[in-house]
Amino acid sequence: MEYETSYDELMERIKEIIRAGDVTKTRTIYEEYHAVDIDEVLEDMEASELQYFLFMLDPEMVADLMENAEDDLQIRMTNFYSTKELIEIFSYMSNADVADLLGLMGTKRRKDLLNYMKKSDSNTLQMILSYDEESAGGVMTTEFLSLKQTLSVGEALLKIKEIAPTTEIIESIFITDNLHRLVGIVDLRDILVAAGFTPLSDLIQDHPFFIYADQDQEDAANLIYKYDLKYLPVVNKNMAILGIITSEDIIEVMEQEHSEDILAMSGVSKDEEYDSNFFESIKSRLPWLVINLFTAFMASAVVSMFESTISQVVALAAAMPIVTGMGGNAGNQALSIVLTSIARDEMELKEDFPLVLKEIGLGLFDGAMIGLLAGIVLYFKYYNFFLSFIIFAAMILNMIIAGIVGFLLPLLFDHFEIDPAISSPIFLTTCTDIFGFFIFLGLATTLLPKLI
Amino acid sequence: MEYETSYDELMERIKEIIRAGDVTKTRTIYEEYHAVDIDEVLEDMEASELQYFLFMLDPEMVADLMENAEDDLQIRMTNFYSTKELIEIFSYMSNADVADLLGLMGTKRRKDLLNYMKKSDSNTLQMILSYDEESAGGVMTTEFLSLKQTLSVGEALLKIKEIAPTTEIIESIFITDNLHRLVGIVDLRDILVAAGFTPLSDLIQDHPFFIYADQDQEDAANLIYKYDLKYLPVVNKNMAILGIITSEDIIEVMEQEHSEDILAMSGVSKDEEYDSNFFESIKSRLPWLVINLFTAFMASAVVSMFESTISQVVALAAAMPIVTGMGGNAGNQALSIVLTSIARDEMELKEDFPLVLKEIGLGLFDGAMIGLLAGIVLYFKYYNFFLSFIIFAAMILNMIIAGIVGFLLPLLFDHFEIDPAISSPIFLTTCTDIFGFFIFLGLATTLLPKLI
Repeated sequence: MEYETSYDELMERIKEIIRAGDVTKTRTIYEEYHAVDIDEVLEDMEASELQYFLFMLDPEMVADLMENAEDDLQIRMTNFYSTKELIEIFSYMSNADVADLLGLMGTKRRKDLLNYMKKSDSNTLQMILSYDEESAGGVMTTEFLSLKQTLSVGEALLKIKEIAPTTEIIESIFITDNLHRLVGIVDLRDILVAAGFTPLSDLIQDHPFFIYADQDQEDAANLIYKYDLKYLPVVNKNMAILGIITSEDIIEVMEQEHSEDILAMSGVSKDEEYDSNFFESIKSRLPWLVINLFTAFMASAVVSMFESTISQVVALAAAMPIVTGMGGNAGNQALSIVLTSIARDEMELKEDFPLVLKEIGLGLFDGAMIGLLAGIVLYFKYYNFFLSFIIFAAMILNMIIAGIVGFLLPLLFDHFEIDPAISSPIFLTTCTDIFGFFIFLGLATTLLPKLI
Repeated sequence: MEYETSYDELMERIKEIIRAGDVTKTRTIYEEYHAVDIDEVLEDMEASELQYFLFMLDPEMVADLMENAEDDLQIRMTNFYSTKELIEIFSYMSNADVADLLGLMGTKRRKDLLNYMKKSDSNTLQMILSYDEESAGGVMTTEFLSLKQTLSVGEALLKIKEIAPTTEIIESIFITDNLHRLVGIVDLRDILVAAGFTPLSDLIQDHPFFIYADQDQEDAANLIYKYDLKYLPVVNKNMAILGIITSEDIIEVMEQEHSEDILAMSGVSKDEEYDSNFFESIKSRLPWLVINLFTAFMASAVVSMFESTISQVVALAAAMPIVTGMGGNAGNQALSIVLTSIARDEMELKEDFPLVLKEIGLGLFDGAMIGLLAGIVLYFKYYNFFLSFIIFAAMILNMIIAGIVGFLLPLLFDHFEIDPAISSPIFLTTCTDIFGFFIFLGLATTLLPKLI
């Protein structure tokens, strides 16, 4: 990468330019640095400086910075411009980006902007806005090449030269019938080598993949990932093509979904970032900790049931967290395998239920190994064979439970369309804690005379 | 999606075709179903059936199935063919896919194949094979369009028509100087509208992004993600272009890296799949459980130190898992935020160290809230103000430690180039368990007279 990306140096230069009010140097900055990097600096600038800097740029440059900016900065930037100015800036942006931006604005401002736009633009934007932000319609790009199947190659080339500069992809041209329904694609490579009078319909290739605009963006991501697609046409109920989702769009979606999964598994709201402020972080984390506290008390209540046993054999207090902790670890192993497979759309409750038998086997085997090790160590500490036997047996049982729960829980949640990344981990540890304490201390109570 | 994807139906049909030995129907199957779906069925077929099915297909069809197959199936398929047959099949595959496949083969077979190939092909393949599988050179595609800057638009168009059918992208043409060094790109859109005699050099756009072939694939993914690129040229030390990485390639890389992160965090080897066999799963999971057992004993040893205190106030045994569990939860929250930010290349130890202050603040605040709640609940169970105070204080201290460790540990590991996803979670829970038990039971021992 040859772009300069030093944040500090760029900040320095931008501040200097603002002090000098030098329009030419502003443009130099814009040419030397990528919009993404400039935006990182602009994010941390005060309103007056930001405004001053932006006002030295062309609408096209502002559009570029706006497209690449995070939500907060986008909104701050729009506030400096009148409706008319914004519409000009928007004319350099993709419809998908403009729609995202409109979605962030207050209702009044959005309405004003849509009213003053060209009718065709506001129609497209309102169509995009009508879909959920995380649906295929919400992520799609509306800049694509679509041509009627009745054209000849020569006519098509003329159209392509005219439209191509504003489209996202040119390699594939989507071919539609008279009702805008997708009938297939034509590869630009074929158009380039075909004779001018060839009818486009002779070059049509089947393109059997599509997605409905109201389907979830994750469905689009899974199709593109599984079949290694470059793009996916987005259609409405009548099969009319509305837009396309490209593999670049999906990179964004995947990054988002994956971070959300990791955060959800740890009980953090998906909106928290590493640089979120103190109160956002509290709002993101505290509620989950309260839920966890509730489940911790449930496990603690199980221990309380056995207080008299513990008071007679205190060694149990030191050994019991080993059983619950190891159960949690084993359960998490099963859970993580299932969660990553669900995310790739590879597993389903109905089809893969029998695999639970493998998890039971693993719980039995790993539990026996770990239980044996733990039993041996405990024996050399307390010289009591029965205590060792209890941890051995409890470890096996708890790991079997851990395997079953870790395996089935995410599949069950997924089956009932509950996000397994959010809900499974906490249920899992609650189970392994409660059962772990219960089995271990229960066995100890039964064998109490042998332990004292 | 209109492709038939029913596994059972497809399996049924393929078996029937094999029974009947019907070549025409085999081709119909190939046209009706996507190679990815056919491969899923072939994976579960016996060698004799698989061979029979493959032998009814053209080399081009076999190449398509091979490109889309998982490693195991690829190797099984190659075993049915002679060196000469394989070279013909390879001619329909991309170099990157052939290189991956060669990488899976035994040394002798690989050498044979490389020897019998055209020199130009084997040179390209050996170049790709010389790079690590997870480096930019290992993922890149060598099918791209590159032209000398001295050509005219007319000459370029002729070349494009000739080469385009075999290239991965045609939208951008990479322009090189006489030493194959990348000087920029030309957009095919501009070539289409320019006059034939225009020199290509007039249309060159700056393309400042590139990656060295020996850099990690994650670096490529981060550049493509951050700057929303369609592709990234891969160059050698002399800036000669060797290949390109497209956004589709990166989808594969990201899926892989993300699954690895989630699995690593839970102590599962990255090679385990949901349908791995029993012994692979044991190999993947048991070593990690043994390490966990070791750390669990360390925490248990801390509890043992306080056995006499616990024997006098058994309520402590029931309350202590609450302190350690909540510490673990809070630490995981901080950890997951930092891990996702590191994966996106957004955080660094040196730059973001000061944010640890926020984590300390959060530990203090969330700890106080959760500690207060826990204290109140315990008060109504045991009616002992001091016990409530102890859990309140221990909760605050343990959550502060959890925040510091959960925040700093992954940054430290990343700084020393150790994968933070593998190593941080276990260190974190070890810390929150050991400190949690120590603080809680230590405070209880100090205040023992007030608790009895």
